Amino acid sequence: MRADVHRFSLKDPSDVSGLNEAIEKGVIDPAKIVAVIGKTHGNGLVNDYTRGYLTLCLSQLIGSQTGASAENVRKRVPFVFSGGVEGVLSPHYAVFTVDPAANARSEQKSLALGVAFTPELSPLDVGRQRQIDMTAQAVSEAMTSASIESPDDVHFVQVKGPAFTLDDIVSAGNTGQSCATDNPGKLMGFGRAASALGVAKALGEIPANRALETAVLHDFDAYSSVASVSAGVEVRVNEIIVAGLSRAWSGSLTIAHRSMQDALDIGSITDLARDLGLSPAPQVPTAQARRIRAAFVKCEAQRNGTIRGRRHTMLNDGDIDQQRHIRGAVGAIVAAVLNDTALFVSGGAEHQGPDGGGLIAIIAEKGIHVE
Amino acid sequence: MRADVHRFSLKDPSDVSGLNEAIEKGVIDPAKIVAVIGKTHGNGLVNDYTRGYLTLCLSQLIGSQTGASAENVRKRVPFVFSGGVEGVLSPHYAVFTVDPAANARSEQKSLALGVAFTPELSPLDVGRQRQIDMTAQAVSEAMTSASIESPDDVHFVQVKGPAFTLDDIVSAGNTGQSCATDNPGKLMGFGRAASALGVAKALGEIPANRALETAVLHDFDAYSSVASVSAGVEVRVNEIIVAGLSRAWSGSLTIAHRSMQDALDIGSITDLARDLGLSPAPQVPTAQARRIRAAFVKCEAQRNGTIRGRRHTMLNDGDIDQQRHIRGAVGAIVAAVLNDTALFVSGGAEHQGPDGGGLIAIIAEKGIHVE
Amino acid sequence: MRADVHRFSLKDPSDVSGLNEAIEKGVIDPAKIVAVIGKTHGNGLVNDYTRGYLTLCLSQLIGSQTGASAENVRKRVPFVFSGGVEGVLSPHYAVFTVDPAANARSEQKSLALGVAFTPELSPLDVGRQRQIDMTAQAVSEAMTSASIESPDDVHFVQVKGPAFTLDDIVSAGNTGQSCATDNPGKLMGFGRAASALGVAKALGEIPANRALETAVLHDFDAYSSVASVSAGVEVRVNEIIVAGLSRAWSGSLTIAHRSMQDALDIGSITDLARDLGLSPAPQVPTAQARRIRAAFVKCEAQRNGTIRGRRHTMLNDGDIDQQRHIRGAVGAIVAAVLNDTALFVSGGAEHQGPDGGGLIAIIAEKGIHVE
Amino acid sequence: MRADVHRFSLKDPSDVSGLNEAIEKGVIDPAKIVAVIGKTHGNGLVNDYTRGYLTLCLSQLIGSQTGASAENVRKRVPFVFSGGVEGVLSPHYAVFTVDPAANARSEQKSLALGVAFTPELSPLDVGRQRQIDMTAQAVSEAMTSASIESPDDVHFVQVKGPAFTLDDIVSAGNTGQSCATDNPGKLMGFGRAASALGVAKALGEIPANRALETAVLHDFDAYSSVASVSAGVEVRVNEIIVAGLSRAWSGSLTIAHRSMQDALDIGSITDLARDLGLSPAPQVPTAQARRIRAAFVKCEAQRNGTIRGRRHTMLNDGDIDQQRHIRGAVGAIVAAVLNDTALFVSGGAEHQGPDGGGLIAIIAEKGIHVE
Repeated sequence: MRADVHRFSLKDPSDVSGLNEAIEKGVIDPAKIVAVIGKTHGNGLVNDYTRGYLTLCLSQLIGSQTGASAENVRKRVPFVFSGGVEGVLSPHYAVFTVDPAANARSEQKSLALGVAFTPELSPLDVGRQRQIDMTAQAVSEAMTSASIESPDDVHFVQVKGPAFTLDDIVSAGNTGQSCATDNPGKLMGFGRAASALGVAKALGEIPANRALETAVLHDFDAYSSVASVSAGVEVRVNEIIVAGLSRAWSGSLTIAHRSMQDALDIGSITDLARDLGLSPAPQVPTAQARRIRAAFVKCEAQRNGTIRGRRHTMLNDGDIDQQRHIRGAVGAIVAAVLNDTALFVSGGAEHQGPDGGGLIAIIAEKGIHVE
Repeated sequence: MRADVHRFSLKDPSDVSGLNEAIEKGVIDPAKIVAVIGKTHGNGLVNDYTRGYLTLCLSQLIGSQTGASAENVRKRVPFVFSGGVEGVLSPHYAVFTVDPAANARSEQKSLALGVAFTPELSPLDVGRQRQIDMTAQAVSEAMTSASIESPDDVHFVQVKGPAFTLDDIVSAGNTGQSCATDNPGKLMGFGRAASALGVAKALGEIPANRALETAVLHDFDAYSSVASVSAGVEVRVNEIIVAGLSRAWSGSLTIAHRSMQDALDIGSITDLARDLGLSPAPQVPTAQARRIRAAFVKCEAQRNGTIRGRRHTMLNDGDIDQQRHIRGAVGAIVAAVLNDTALFVSGGAEHQGPDGGGLIAIIAEKGIHVE
Repeated sequence: MRADVHRFSLKDPSDVSGLNEAIEKGVIDPAKIVAVIGKTHGNGLVNDYTRGYLTLCLSQLIGSQTGASAENVRKRVPFVFSGGVEGVLSPHYAVFTVDPAANARSEQKSLALGVAFTPELSPLDVGRQRQIDMTAQAVSEAMTSASIESPDDVHFVQVKGPAFTLDDIVSAGNTGQSCATDNPGKLMGFGRAASALGVAKALGEIPANRALETAVLHDFDAYSSVASVSAGVEVRVNEIIVAGLSRAWSGSLTIAHRSMQDALDIGSITDLARDLGLSPAPQVPTAQARRIRAAFVKCEAQRNGTIRGRRHTMLNDGDIDQQRHIRGAVGAIVAAVLNDTALFVSGGAEHQGPDGGGLIAIIAEKGIHVE
Repeated sequence: MRADVHRFSLKDPSDVSGLNEAIEKGVIDPAKIVAVIGKTHGNGLVNDYTRGYLTLCLSQLIGSQTGASAENVRKRVPFVFSGGVEGVLSPHYAVFTVDPAANARSEQKSLALGVAFTPELSPLDVGRQRQIDMTAQAVSEAMTSASIESPDDVHFVQVKGPAFTLDDIVSAGNTGQSCATDNPGKLMGFGRAASALGVAKALGEIPANRALETAVLHDFDAYSSVASVSAGVEVRVNEIIVAGLSRAWSGSLTIAHRSMQDALDIGSITDLARDLGLSPAPQVPTAQARRIRAAFVKCEAQRNGTIRGRRHTMLNDGDIDQQRHIRGAVGAIVAAVLNDTALFVSGGAEHQGPDGGGLIAIIAEKGIHVE
């Protein structure tokens, strides 16, 4: 098997011209697309409809190019879009393809991809044990399908789970049961948290007896160092994309990741760049930066209201949501080091990396210094 | 003469406890305060009243400690506050003091400070020739008073000019003349631009025949590499603070600056840190970071809607002002390198540094590598 | 001919279930749809993509139900969506149908509809003479096609014109010519203004020698009392919908309009309700309110910063755009009188109704007191 | 005793020129000021510092005019400012004075005012039983001091309680106890709710066994029909102002109130206007409107996401807080009926009026039809 990744710029959330051109030119075989991850123009909060808009347009394009309905494309291909391109960030999407025909078992590990889906989740499931366990099971399935042998070889697990509007929450409450919270934005946080614990459980990062509903948004020392979870109103299941390394795959791409200890942890970014053979001194040179195929960042505003002892104001701001603040900040630091603004930077890093920090993963062309 | 700088954290815009304690303990002599520069909690736009609130509280404190009225303190001491502590930035203020009794002429150049004020400016003057020329004249006065011999020794010129609300603009228009624009936010931009051209004129960065009203917001290749201009409704004159180096001053502090070519120009930040004997590899270590006494950054969203060829969305965003976006982004990059979040980061860099870029200046304790 | 109007609630901008159900049940013949006007969830500013999202979904639905491509549906049917359902307003869309087979010439005038399109407009045309003249011509065509004999019988002219992002404006500028402004949001205002002057010209509300480019955003006493103009990035031509009264049409619907003198002009709202046989004392009773089929409001924040002598803050607010403020305010007043929140309320009333005011038009079932 | 009320316009949050002029001219005796209630320019959320800014400026003015310190003025006079003048609303403050020398017991009831304060409240007290009980006790004290005999004669109880930033909440949590919530904005809601239940308890609107901590933000059918509660970071106690009618007071002013059943309940507004002898048909005429001395409105976005069966979007909006939405909407309806935009409109009506609705109270000059 061989995995490939292509990134396309996004003029507006319906702009699928980049992928369309790549298909027309034969650069991408639409039947081999297994996942799409991107950043769209919206606010990244509950009322962000740019994620669904792009999902619709891309699934229709892929459908029309493969003779499938858009619905069937969406059942097969996770479309994981996070809204919010604050500051220097650039709207884009990365298309992941798998060529199963490519030749087998090589000496060197290469980028390996696996995809899986949970069953449908109701608003009542969000942030609850069912979401944790379903997610864990789907992650295991995706690892197996990707022939990734060890959890140590998993470098990035993207989960896109459902968000619900007040409408949905009120309807769910009419059954007599109640959701984890009746605040739509806060319920997104519960969902991200439970999903991250599911990933941590599947990869053995935490023991099963800590991957519990009671730990959700509570035991922040329980986390996955490779999970990245988003939520959006346009999906109803947890969609899972596992990216790692495997000798069962060939190709020119590799992947690596690092935890970020806090929002200022630029050292982990430069270390990761060096892990991949890049030279961030202090910035990856333009020619080298072309080797970067995609980068994924999770981050969050530190809960105690300070960063390295100094106050931040992100949690008191009634005009700009804390997620928009932190994406703009951490996204800029990563962009400055990598010399690349088309980054997937997502806020709300509950149980995704160290508390107050997060994670960064990069897919890049193999370099000289890489294994 | 000897200059000193102390930074204080700001819990809310009326929190003057830090300076008060320093005065009570004898660390700062309130009579020697010549300027205060800081970042407050507001949005940094026209309806940001946190700048005026802090100005009131500080001028009353200094007044009560020196036996002067708050009004007289404000006439003597520029209070330059920029609103908006987006992302990782931390609200704070830096207090500048000058001890004239300190001993004279040394071998080594030290931080030198000069302050001056223009006459009162009306809404009709903003962005016009009168603001350019008055600013230039005041900058020259401040240089002279600071005994800075050469424009090359000027490393930072902070200007705080007036902003006007719609009320003021409408009143001014009733005289039959019209303002440069009737949009309050845009008029702030005109004022910053004209003031920056005034600085450039005074320092010989551009010839007098380019420091014209017609160049305002038009000839963006005409700029000052050391000007930093803010505007706020709480002042009616251009207040000027010139910071540079001079052998007429002694003391432990120095200053340096660099231009930033664009929002991702992390190299200029690390270069500047090295100029000051710091080791940003990639981050100034905590112990070294204590030597930083204050840092000043100007930045702006690139006018053509791209950064290094990739789209940004800052200029199309109806929910978050472009200045809030860019401050959060560039502020985070600088904070990550300097290991310091109490930075004066100000948007709206019209004619302040290269177009699409800006500038960074740092006041630090002299280090081993410094002249 | 017979015109009909059906309103549908919108759960999210892709929710076309209401129209779909009406088509499935035979209530609406999709081939007879001539226009759709609605309010979507976005901010109503440049970066509002909910308008395009709903346009795509509705055009695809109508296309699939009529055997046409979505593109061809969009060429035939204007989809006029205004973003921003502030306060009590409710997202919805109103579907306009015309049955040409319905019987001719009646004693009583009935709702008459006409649709027309201008040629494509470039960013350079926006706010310029070409947009004025093209719009005027298209309005005349739409009147003729609607068999509306006199301009006095025209009660509402909806125009949806193009908005352009910074990308487009920069590209247009590369030709050497420049747009009316390089600010995307402000260019929307220029486009609304020029289009409104075009309507006023076509209806003889102003003489041709006042419908000039130089009057745009300048001569605010030149206005159309029935024009309502929106702009959005999802169209490239001015789409025109003329609604009026004609004896060539039959059916149960009528239309009326009033100018609003300012944002507090509740009297014009109650007067208009009474014109239509409703009893707003002070609120149209629920049973009567069902007779309202659609209502359209244009409004704007008064330019001098006051309303009836008291300051408002809408034009100084850096956190909420003035259009969002005024839509929420005027929309609530109209909703309270009409007992109906599914209103098309649109800000930016440049040359649309009296300066600082706007207009209101209602389509309702004919009542006892109506002609 | 005789009560009087004067309203002043507010150019910016430090603009105390109106009161200053009234004092200078002898219209207001500063020693007789017992309370100030107003609307300032901020967002009305946690990071709104305009309330504190105006409090500082007014307390200093009154202090300087009465020979007291600003601190002592603040201990004696409640300053209740609510941020957020959305839409047509106008920033202003109403100054309440009491002349104790004025002659006693009259036939007709007149406006009666009483003021009281609770002890200091910590973040841990907010939303808890202590806040309920302390508030109830202070309301009783204020009624007694105002010689209001029956709870039926109480028409408006304004409470201003403390809000806390994340800093405060984190500090409080360090004691081992936890606050009702660690979200600063949500804690404001807890505080408003508990305070409202305290008012309801004091006035016998609910029995003591329903005025319990467990009812806070839970039993929404338990409410006070006259309570209006705001919260702000600038106070640390609950400040209570009781306004009602009493024969122990003379003067030309009266007060009345009505509950609003929902955001569209315009009928209660016109009914209340008629209660006071005004003629809202549909708008109070300008000459009559001058009789209105102050008006107070509480309102909230309906929790189930609909108003009269139609969806609103206020609770899903990540860009504009629900309180800003609802203040702008309900404020506009009241302004249109009363022909007055200088209204105290405050969001967050938890347990203040019917669930989803709120209340309106008006102080006006006695008219012909009034008792």
